[in-house]
Order: sequence, then structure tokens, then C-alpha cells
Amino acid sequence: MNANPTPSYDALAATWTRLHRLGHLGAIASWDQSAMMPSKGNEARAAAMAELAGLLHRMRIEPALRDQLERAAQEPLSELQRANLREIRHDWRSSNALPESLVQRKEMASTRCEHAWRTQRPANDWAGFLPNFREVLAVAREEATLLAEQSGLSRYDALLDLYEPGTDTATLDRVFGEVRQWLPGLIRRVIDKQSREPTIAPVGPFPVPAQRALCEQAMRLLGFDFGAGRLDVSAHPFCGGVPEDVRMTTRFREDDFLGSLMGTIHETGHGRYQQNLPRDWLGQPVAMARSAAIHESQSLSFEMQLGCHPGFVARLAPLLVAAFGDQPAFDPANLQRLLTRVKPGFIRVDADEVTYPAHVILRYEIERPLLEGEIEPEDVPALWDAKMMELLGIDTRGNFTDGPLQDVHWPLGLLSYFPSYSLGAMYAAQWFATMRRTMPDLDARIAAGDLAPIFDWLRDNIWQQASRWTTDELARRATGESLNPAHFKAHLEARYL
Amino acid sequence: MNANPTPSYDALAATWTRLHRLGHLGAIASWDQSAMMPSKGNEARAAAMAELAGLLHRMRIEPALRDQLERAAQEPLSELQRANLREIRHDWRSSNALPESLVQRKEMASTRCEHAWRTQRPANDWAGFLPNFREVLAVAREEATLLAEQSGLSRYDALLDLYEPGTDTATLDRVFGEVRQWLPGLIRRVIDKQSREPTIAPVGPFPVPAQRALCEQAMRLLGFDFGAGRLDVSAHPFCGGVPEDVRMTTRFREDDFLGSLMGTIHETGHGRYQQNLPRDWLGQPVAMARSAAIHESQSLSFEMQLGCHPGFVARLAPLLVAAFGDQPAFDPANLQRLLTRVKPGFIRVDADEVTYPAHVILRYEIERPLLEGEIEPEDVPALWDAKMMELLGIDTRGNFTDGPLQDVHWPLGLLSYFPSYSLGAMYAAQWFATMRRTMPDLDARIAAGDLAPIFDWLRDNIWQQASRWTTDELARRATGESLNPAHFKAHLEARYL
Repeated sequence: MNANPTPSYDALAATWTRLHRLGHLGAIASWDQSAMMPSKGNEARAAAMAELAGLLHRMRIEPALRDQLERAAQEPLSELQRANLREIRHDWRSSNALPESLVQRKEMASTRCEHAWRTQRPANDWAGFLPNFREVLAVAREEATLLAEQSGLSRYDALLDLYEPGTDTATLDRVFGEVRQWLPGLIRRVIDKQSREPTIAPVGPFPVPAQRALCEQAMRLLGFDFGAGRLDVSAHPFCGGVPEDVRMTTRFREDDFLGSLMGTIHETGHGRYQQNLPRDWLGQPVAMARSAAIHESQSLSFEMQLGCHPGFVARLAPLLVAAFGDQPAFDPANLQRLLTRVKPGFIRVDADEVTYPAHVILRYEIERPLLEGEIEPEDVPALWDAKMMELLGIDTRGNFTDGPLQDVHWPLGLLSYFPSYSLGAMYAAQWFATMRRTMPDLDARIAAGDLAPIFDWLRDNIWQQASRWTTDELARRATGESLNPAHFKAHLEARYL
Repeated sequence: MNANPTPSYDALAATWTRLHRLGHLGAIASWDQSAMMPSKGNEARAAAMAELAGLLHRMRIEPALRDQLERAAQEPLSELQRANLREIRHDWRSSNALPESLVQRKEMASTRCEHAWRTQRPANDWAGFLPNFREVLAVAREEATLLAEQSGLSRYDALLDLYEPGTDTATLDRVFGEVRQWLPGLIRRVIDKQSREPTIAPVGPFPVPAQRALCEQAMRLLGFDFGAGRLDVSAHPFCGGVPEDVRMTTRFREDDFLGSLMGTIHETGHGRYQQNLPRDWLGQPVAMARSAAIHESQSLSFEMQLGCHPGFVARLAPLLVAAFGDQPAFDPANLQRLLTRVKPGFIRVDADEVTYPAHVILRYEIERPLLEGEIEPEDVPALWDAKMMELLGIDTRGNFTDGPLQDVHWPLGLLSYFPSYSLGAMYAAQWFATMRRTMPDLDARIAAGDLAPIFDWLRDNIWQQASRWTTDELARRATGESLNPAHFKAHLEARYL
């Protein structure tokens, strides 16, 4: 008799395979909603998506799972199975921490706040925003408290753990604290240097079909597999779908092609991560992307580390000439200056590589005390104004539209997501510093159009590792050290000074 | 105290709303699979679709439903609720008739047979097809026996009831028996007449973007709502999606535009039926399309009754000139002759309006005795050859590729679907005969481009009635009589003689 020694683990794995398969339909329907669906389909789609979300939630809170999780921990599991069990438990815990009533209250509060925010933002209506946001915040605090009670973490750390398992306030304080020291000075020096480097702006119009073909060329250059993914158009670009079928989107403006081109290169980083997750375990949490920051480290490896690399820009230039005809702006050196122009501004999503972390640090320094109850929503504008002046030297007083109302994250109750963006930029710099250490001719190879060493390194060290290790272990295995913002500083100094 | 007097009915309605919402995701994923999905996504998609199918099946065989159905029948229901309960019971019964083991055996048999058929058909390999088809037939006979035991119908009628509830062999024998009497003679007279009417063939190429724009123009002309649907491309055109968001497809060939144009007009009939189902009840079976034949009566109302009407063809002609430039073939009278050319051929899907019923009658006369066990698969070729000679005067001996191997229906185990196509053509003729009776100026209106009376009639009499009545009641309410093939005969004689 050969009794199965891991019945509970197997039952859990089967449940998460089912979640993956049904989630697949939700992912495609969600992509379709943004990229394909005609407007009148929205109500029925929303009802269908809510039905599926409820179904998946009920599968995750099935009482039998608690017992299976306990028993599985006692079963003779392989290292990979044990890692998978850790990820299953993480997923299970975040679904089971909140009572149904709070899940519903959260849904209602964020839907109302986000909906009103769409008109309050253009109307600069901070006062109108406040009551809705207070409720969103109250729910987020309650959610964080419940999560904190289960995990023993602080409230902000407990929320952060949803997107960045293992990363905590101590790490953020250390890393952002360091960056905070040198960033404002660096920005001033870069602006001063660039003031003596004139650039030539591209002259449009740039026909959409040519832009689309150009974006697809760039995706091919970057190894995107069109047999397992697509590029389409949506109002807000994203990389969705499933690992087996990646759905990227972009948007086109006839008067500017760089936005869609660099946005596409960014999403291609997300896309290749998804396409190269380990096949053998697909459907299990251990085979999924590690975290939001690690995902962002891929998109920024593509967009910033590689996409704005002078060697890569020199390979892009002839493609632009072929797409739109020749013009002075397409000179590679000019293109490179255009892509690395630094200018402090109000808007995070429009920020360049150097000023971007200032936007994130500011949000972190506000949302953490806000969530912990150290400050209240009415304290936000004054803090915002002071920090924008301190970090970027710009005056935001009275401008809520381009100030604390600019992002959708807080209206949605996403109060611990912003750090991932800058952690991703730092990890990307750390990946490339490691590649340069082990491949001293990396920059020459990029200039020669040989990108294979980069993709091989990312595939071996990041993509194929998926969620096998904690984020910190992943970084240490890949680079020999934990997250170290010195690499990001060195990268910015090398590129911008 | 105001106790709910219809708790069981309400519980059933809630279940079917859930089925509708989850089915929505399956419909969109299925459309995506045909129209959008890159090839490597297929395995994961198939797994996701199978997971959903299993889930929906389990919802339909939930033991509590049996009791709810019994109790609901005793509850004080409105007429509409009672009709809905009838449709729910019909859906429930077909899902619950088969044991899980037979469902799986059916799935396996049809998948294997259909897969092998894809290469056996081009290889003319009837002998290779036989063993797989024997198993498909064995399963279909078993399924029909189980369904027949429950319903008291004959085996063929029990299967037919899945697509054409209420229609039986007696009706088909009566209707097809009548048509069989006059059809071969009519075909000969039409061919003789048309031999004296030369046609000019259109000269290509016809660029795909112009064809696409033309198809969309035709759809607009026919009232398709692009705010609630789309037109895309797939290998096999279909009309899918959900009533709230209709997804039509077509395919383009540079050397022929009439195929995609008339195919699009056909699918637009299905699409408008879907788009105009009654909104208030959407999600409930009573609000869904009545049957396969009634659906086909809409696509054929659009493609044949209207699309090949001389008045409508005269409105299409200038659109062709605008799309492709002028040429002699686009003369309206010539176009009309092209669209109504009658020529007996091997292939059902390529058949014209007049010879098409011969293909269906032949299949009915073979699949009915096959299912009832009166003949066996090895008897099919000889019957096929004899009936093709008798009905269409063409010799099919030894040609299995263009003979009994031509359709996907039998390999898939769909052994009672063919009649719907011709019933649809007959219902369409009956609808238009009724319209002409009540609107004597109908043809003049069509010629003047005023299609509103047609759409109004179809909306009031078919679309908005959905599944409120049985098919026969629907026909009698709309036209004053049950299905009567005399209208189809009169239509063909008026148009072709």
C-alpha cells in the first residue's frame, strides 16, 4: 500500500489551481473591459466580475482550508512545496483576515470615494473629497488593525505585507532615509548640468499605425513572445492577462510618440517577467511574480536601465527614422538627452527617473502616519506643500488637483502601494550593478545590440525564481546583498552627472 | 407580517442569474479564444474554460434544485414567472438527465472524434473516421435514451428538444416531407431559367480595410448597436458574447468581398436578436433567445429575406462603388443575380438559398434513423450518395471529404442540430409573408431604404418575446399559424421563377 503522504498539501494545491484557472477568466474579462468592451457592456461586465470575485473569495475562506494548512505543514514536503505552502498561507491569511462586513464596507467606501474623486480632482475640491476619504481611511485603519493582530506587525507593515511581503517600515525608513539625504542635492546638480545641454524636440504628427508598428518592433527587440501575448490600446496602459497569455496595452497620441514607446518598453518588462515564470509550477502561488516591487524592477530594468541606455537608444534611433522619416531630434545623442531630461514637476506619473523617488518618499511619509493614526486627513495638504518644497523646490499651495488629489491610490484605499515603485527602481539598479560586475563588457554588448546576456541573467535570477524565495532572499541570491540604494545612487550619478 | 410567497422561485431565479453572470465570462473568453488569443494561450484557456464548465454544471445539478422546482410550481407566480420556471426546468432537466460518467465519456468521445476528423476529412478517410464515430454515436444513443426516458419522447425527439424544444419528428416529417415533394422540381426550373441570365463577376482584389468598413456600414444600415457590440475577425464567423455585449466575427479574403459582406449581414441578424432581448428580465432563461431555429430565422431574415431583396441590393450597390470603385459587376440587377445564383453543390455551407434545404433534409433523413438504431454508421455513404443524386442530381460516390465528412456536427455528436437551419429559413419566410400581409407597401419601403417597419415587427413579435412562449405559440402569435412551409415555397417561387 502506497498511501499519499501529502494529502492536505495536495488538496490545497488543487484549490489554488482552480483559483488560477477561474482567475484566468477574470483576467481576460478585465483586459477586455479596458481594451475591447463597448461602453454599454459595462454594467453586465461589472456584475459578472463581482460574481466571480465573490466566488473566488468564498473559495479562499472555505473553512476546511484552515485545517489543511495546519496538516500540510506537518507533511513531508519538498523545499519547493514548502515555499508554495508559505505563499498559499500568505494568500489565505490576507483573504481570511477580514470579516465579510468589512470587505463590503471597504468595497463601498472605495467605490464611492473613487467615483466622486473623478470630478473632485479636476474641480480642485479637497473639502469635498475629505468626508469620503475619512471613511476610506477608517476602513483601511480597521483592516490594518485586523491584519496587524494576526501577524504581529505594525499597522502600516501589515498593509504593506499585502504587496511587499517581508518588507517593513524599518527597511523603508532606512532606504528612503538614505535617498532623502542625497536626492535634493543631486537633482539641483543635474538640473544645473542639463541647463547647458540644449535638446531638439521631435516634430510631429506621428501617425498612429507607424507608432504601433514601432512599439511592436521594440517589443520584439526586447524578446516579447507575440505567440503568447498581445499589444492593444486602453485609456490607462497596463500589463494584464495571465502568464500563459500576456495582454499589454498602450495609448497613442499623434503629437508625441515617446510616451507610448517608452510606456510600451516599460510594460514589456512586466510582460517578459510574466511570460517567463516557471512553467512547471504555473497555477501555484510559488510560480507567480514575487511582489509589486520585483515586478516594477522588471519594467524599470526595461524602461530605465536598458531603454534609456545610450547604447540601446542608438539602436532605437534608426527605427524612429524608418517609422517617421528623418529629423534632427532623432540624432541618438539628442534622443538620449530627451529621454533623460530632469525637471521637477507636480505629477508623479510624469516624473523623470531622478525626481520620481521624491514623489514616492513624500507619499510614504504622509500615508504611513496617516494609517497609524498619527495624523488626520486634514493635515495632508500642509505636509504635502512642505515636502514638495523641501524635496523638489516647488510650490503646491492651494493646488490639490496636482497635489494630494492626483493619484487614484488613496481614493481606492491603497495606502501602502507607493513604496513599491521606488523599491523597484532601486532593485533594477542593483540587478544591473550585479550584471556589470559579472559581465564587464555589458555596456559594449548593449551598444552592439546583444541583449541576450541581460535577458539570460533576468531569466535565471528573477523570472524563473518566481516566488520560490522571500524577496530579501531573492535579492541576496541574485546580487549577494539585501536591497542597497547605493546602486541606485551610483546609477543616477553615472548617467546624469 | 409579509412573508415572501415565492421563496423557491426566487431561489431558482437567483441561481440562474449567477449562471448568467458566470456564463458571461465564459462567453467573452470563448470569443477571445477565437478572435484575439495568441496560439500559445490555448492550453491554459482550455483548462480555464473546462473549470468554469464544471462549475456551472455543478451549479445546475445541485440537489436542492429538484425540491425548489417542485415547490416553485406550487407558488403564486405571474404568467411571466411561470414561463421562466418552464425554461428553468428545461435547462435543469437537460443538465440532470446524464450521469457524470456519461458526460465525461461524451466529452472524451467527441473531442477524440473531432480532433481526428480534422485530418481524416482532407484525407477522405471514412474508414479511419468510423471507429471514433461509432463511439460518438453510442454515447449519443445512450444520452438520447436517458433523455427519452425522462420526457417520454422518442430518442431523436429527446435530443432535438435540446435545441428545438417542442419541435418533434412528426413536425419535421410533415414539413420536410412537403418540401421534398416540390424542391427537386423547383431547383431544375430555376437552373433552367438562370441559364439564360448571364452574370458578371466582380473583379478584385478587394482591400481588407475597405471590406471591413463596408461590413460596418452594412451593420449600421441594419441597426446594429456598436455601443453594445463589436465586429472582429475569426477563422469561423460566429455571433457570440452576451446580449448586453454582442461579439460578431467575420473573415476576409482579398479576392472576394461578398462572402464576408453577406456573412456579416447574416450574423447581424443574430446580433440584433441578442441586442434586443427584453432588458428587464435579462439573466433569466425566459429572456433568452427562443431556440436555434428562431435564432436562425433572424439571421436568415437579414441575409436572405432582406439582404438579397432587390430593393436592399440596390441600396448596397452604391456602398460597393464607394468602397472599391465602380465596375460593371456592381450594377444592382447584376448584383442581385449574383446573390441569388442557384447551383447544386457538394457543400452545405456554400449552398444557395434554394438548394440548402436539400442538404438539411438529407442529413435529417440519415441522422434520425442513425440515432434511433435503424441504421448503422457503415450505411451512411450509400444513403448519402442516393439522396444527393435524388435531391440535387450530383454524384458523391467515394467522395467522403465533400460528403458525410464535410460537417463538424456529427464528429461532435450533434445529431439533431441540422433541422434548425432550414426551420429557420422557413420561419423567416413566414415572418416576411406576415409583414407583407399587414404592410402591403413593404417592398416599396425596403426599396426606399425604410427598414424600420421590419425591425419594429421583429422587435415586437420575436426579439422582445424572447422565451416567453413555446416556439409554436410564438409563431402563432406572430403570424396566426404554426410553421407552414408554404410561405417558404411561395418566397422561393416569387424570387427565383
